[in-house]
Amino acid sequence: MSTSTRPPATDLQVDFPFDYAAHVGGGRRMGRLPEKVLGARVAVVGTGGSGLAAAYELLRAGCRPVLYEAERSADGPGGRRLGGRMYSRRLREEDSAVVELGCMRFPDSASLLRQYAGTFGVRLEPFRDNYAAPVTPLTVLDVDGVQHTTREIQDLYDRLDGFREAHTRWRRALARIGLSQILRDLAARDLTAVRPHWNQVLGRFESWSFYRFLREPGGAGLTHDQARLLGTAGVAPGVWDSFFEISVIEILRLLLCTEGSDTLYAPDGISRLAEGFWTCPVADPRERTHSLEAVNEGAPRPAVRLLEVEPDAARGVVVHDADGQAERFAAVVFTPQLRLLETGIEVRSTSPRTPVFGPRLWRAVRRLSYWQSSKTALVVERPFWEATTMDGVTLTDRLPRAAYTLDYGPPRGPEGRRGVLDLSFSWAQDAAKVAPSSLEERVALFVRDLASIHPGMADELRAQARAGEAVTVSWENEKNFRGLCRWSCPGDYPYQRDLFAHFLKDFTGSPAVPGEPPNALYLAGDDTSWSPGWLDHALASGLNAAWGVLRQLGARPEPGNPGPGDVWGDPRYTPPTTP
Amino acid sequence: MSTSTRPPATDLQVDFPFDYAAHVGGGRRMGRLPEKVLGARVAVVGTGGSGLAAAYELLRAGCRPVLYEAERSADGPGGRRLGGRMYSRRLREEDSAVVELGCMRFPDSASLLRQYAGTFGVRLEPFRDNYAAPVTPLTVLDVDGVQHTTREIQDLYDRLDGFREAHTRWRRALARIGLSQILRDLAARDLTAVRPHWNQVLGRFESWSFYRFLREPGGAGLTHDQARLLGTAGVAPGVWDSFFEISVIEILRLLLCTEGSDTLYAPDGISRLAEGFWTCPVADPRERTHSLEAVNEGAPRPAVRLLEVEPDAARGVVVHDADGQAERFAAVVFTPQLRLLETGIEVRSTSPRTPVFGPRLWRAVRRLSYWQSSKTALVVERPFWEATTMDGVTLTDRLPRAAYTLDYGPPRGPEGRRGVLDLSFSWAQDAAKVAPSSLEERVALFVRDLASIHPGMADELRAQARAGEAVTVSWENEKNFRGLCRWSCPGDYPYQRDLFAHFLKDFTGSPAVPGEPPNALYLAGDDTSWSPGWLDHALASGLNAAWGVLRQLGARPEPGNPGPGDVWGDPRYTPPTTP
Repeated sequence: MSTSTRPPATDLQVDFPFDYAAHVGGGRRMGRLPEKVLGARVAVVGTGGSGLAAAYELLRAGCRPVLYEAERSADGPGGRRLGGRMYSRRLREEDSAVVELGCMRFPDSASLLRQYAGTFGVRLEPFRDNYAAPVTPLTVLDVDGVQHTTREIQDLYDRLDGFREAHTRWRRALARIGLSQILRDLAARDLTAVRPHWNQVLGRFESWSFYRFLREPGGAGLTHDQARLLGTAGVAPGVWDSFFEISVIEILRLLLCTEGSDTLYAPDGISRLAEGFWTCPVADPRERTHSLEAVNEGAPRPAVRLLEVEPDAARGVVVHDADGQAERFAAVVFTPQLRLLETGIEVRSTSPRTPVFGPRLWRAVRRLSYWQSSKTALVVERPFWEATTMDGVTLTDRLPRAAYTLDYGPPRGPEGRRGVLDLSFSWAQDAAKVAPSSLEERVALFVRDLASIHPGMADELRAQARAGEAVTVSWENEKNFRGLCRWSCPGDYPYQRDLFAHFLKDFTGSPAVPGEPPNALYLAGDDTSWSPGWLDHALASGLNAAWGVLRQLGARPEPGNPGPGDVWGDPRYTPPTTP
Repeated sequence: MSTSTRPPATDLQVDFPFDYAAHVGGGRRMGRLPEKVLGARVAVVGTGGSGLAAAYELLRAGCRPVLYEAERSADGPGGRRLGGRMYSRRLREEDSAVVELGCMRFPDSASLLRQYAGTFGVRLEPFRDNYAAPVTPLTVLDVDGVQHTTREIQDLYDRLDGFREAHTRWRRALARIGLSQILRDLAARDLTAVRPHWNQVLGRFESWSFYRFLREPGGAGLTHDQARLLGTAGVAPGVWDSFFEISVIEILRLLLCTEGSDTLYAPDGISRLAEGFWTCPVADPRERTHSLEAVNEGAPRPAVRLLEVEPDAARGVVVHDADGQAERFAAVVFTPQLRLLETGIEVRSTSPRTPVFGPRLWRAVRRLSYWQSSKTALVVERPFWEATTMDGVTLTDRLPRAAYTLDYGPPRGPEGRRGVLDLSFSWAQDAAKVAPSSLEERVALFVRDLASIHPGMADELRAQARAGEAVTVSWENEKNFRGLCRWSCPGDYPYQRDLFAHFLKDFTGSPAVPGEPPNALYLAGDDTSWSPGWLDHALASGLNAAWGVLRQLGARPEPGNPGPGDVWGDPRYTPPTTP
């Protein structure tokens, strides 16, 4: 499939192809609240993408969202760090260089994200991703100790034994299941065609792992060694053999967002998007101007310790925070990774007879899997890699797995630095390898391997490592996250579906998730979405929760602008209960 | 299959059914060294089961093994902790209670382990494992918020909807692939029958995950919900849904060691076995008496930093330690988890033309997966759970996953304590949930859940948690381990086979692993074995490495006692290169 004939990556989530960007774009609000509930206080736990998007849209609709945040930062509002996994660090005020410890890149299909970025004036530029010529001058693939210098992935066909066949078979398998057709139908908004096609793919492949799809004749039919080569070279942004055991459906979802799409990054740091949500002036339904910052008196509240949930939604939820303060809210949007429900934040019903979640929801929460992910970056004075073999991306089967080079342009001051060398960005088992290693040890290990892959740069690399400033993260060991994002194993579909549907909890006795009590607690966050790890879908999950809150408060859709819950019953949208 | 007709679990590793216990039992030595090399100095890196077994047998054969150990312990020899994942902690000198942070239980089929335990006078007694009536009074299964009290797993048939069918189908699937027949043939030492049968199982199922085997008609043919129930109730000691994504072959290997077998534990702590290896007097071929302790002058050497490996095995290996000392040895046995080869201990060839490992070995090392595992134990004055619902094992789909109760008998002094409540023993994703939690947080979370499962014990549990002393570990964050043990994903067989075969590296030009240079570095450790996580197989891996060293030094087998490398070429033993 040549690039020119590729249908564009979709801006919709194939499992629930609602157009969130259109829903809140062009000044449209998510719903119209009855006059008497305008100003209702809603707590939003967590100031990551989903929490901020929920709060922002609730504010626009006329609520008073109160934000809570557990993460700290010396220079954040009230000493709190906004943004969750939008986590940009500028190590020195004068640096133009920004290290992205969380979200690093976005497919240009991410329309909701791009829309908010536009509103807030957050610049997005092409990211130097692997095989992304001409943006990325070179991608070096190092496998079995041998280096292959490429510009596009097809350059490997004649250089790496077995790769042409592996990649061709993989592309053919995707064509056979109709991935391009689904993309074309989504682009044409022909949802009537998409639903049965996608349900068929789900039914056939949901219980298949990525590895199984690569190996079996019903998938790509590769040998183990071909699968390994493809898994080292990568099949999409950030998809390698580290993900062999997850459901192939997760890989297909990711391809649907990225196929034929460029990836973008935020040259000023993606944390700017969080600042945008926080500070951007918003007109409420009475045309009064607010901002989340103003409504929250300049700072989010501290970490939440306990949610006391009333069985009667009208009585809301009492939020207890780490400072010992408690307040009753009309509703609560809960956005931390769901693992925190078991390990961090206590969620208690005020009635022993009515639990906060039904058994199906607990089952989904308990059985979720989360990815380890580790990144180590070096901030350097200048892009010393220019016009060398390192000018672009290095992919390797050694410890670093993936290294990126970014130039953030002229520094902001005389002592400022402009270069970021991501020494390593790794996932799952590969990230686990370095989890107990200190920053200094990580830098030494990654520099050792990169120097061996780029022998001509060995001395320079070591000198830059001494002169530069390094920073690292292992998301699985971050207390407020416990993993970078969720991943679905074969068989997990019912859990994903129930978590996604949770926002619909209805008050008529037939909730979308049977057994879900109709209280005023709403889950959001990318791990309730269909494609965890994508900021765009985290934002959309916040809009789902906001829809639930607004409906509970008696809101009605604006004419001609139904919300995600309003279209749920439309068979073009309703995701099947089981695959 | 009723218990009475079950063939015994095998003491052999089905993939390489060599009888290690017989090989070194009855005073037999592993080989006869030429007179001139008696006293050859061999370095053994790591004093876990494999390192100690290798060193012990090398000492018996006439070498001088020099041990290195990275782990520290105030009361260990020279401030070093012997034992690796044999890690028993007696928190107070007067306690009889011992917390096992690593190896906790052993199938009674573990003949090599039992033989060494007998030699060293280490007591082994029945372990109170799940469903192990009458040793274990009760096993409580808590699933979806409902508790089921059982003595044997069949008690769940009438109490848990769908369980009878799930368990019956699972048993039938095992019968269909002939697990019992393999066990009978192994017991009868009919290896000619075992090899083709096992190769057939490997060929058919190696690339299947455990979950796929549970779901597909060619396996157990369960629904997702049945698989989940079975995965919560457990199918063998320590096998739950935490392991759904690993190769089903790993589960079958485990069943072959445990089916119809009781599990045992060491009432004085399994670290006693390490002490046994260290202190037990040994007669060398000249009938001089030694011990590892004496030969090592009372303490192992510190952590190893660098191994300089000569391409010519006759020139051995130079070992550099953390104290800056270096010594050249005739050979080196390397036993840490293989992840340390990438992240901790540098391995360098003295010749740029001859690498230390060939590309196939590096591929295997880099692609290994390791389990997270976490345990939190509470040492208490007395077995307060006696005659309550907690008197035995609690299995749950909540955070603790598995809780065990152990009574170590009369304390050793007036202030001593005898009870150990393992509040939680968990694996993989379940262990990851608490990885960033402190000891205090873990105890509070697990007590919260156990109190909810055993409401009658809630107050007592909280009181005991206050009065008792807790200890915890997350193996994935232990720097010298980086995981509890290896696990094989679908497709990993070739890596396992190559790592296992590494000890055979031969000097005739046709090594068992093509491309392996014939140097003097030998890998051992349970992650080079076929069934990681079992001490018995860790010990056997040490014997493999010892065989390699002895062969390099010119040893010949004692008459009638061929070693593991001597039988490799016998088709009843040779594991296939690919499944």
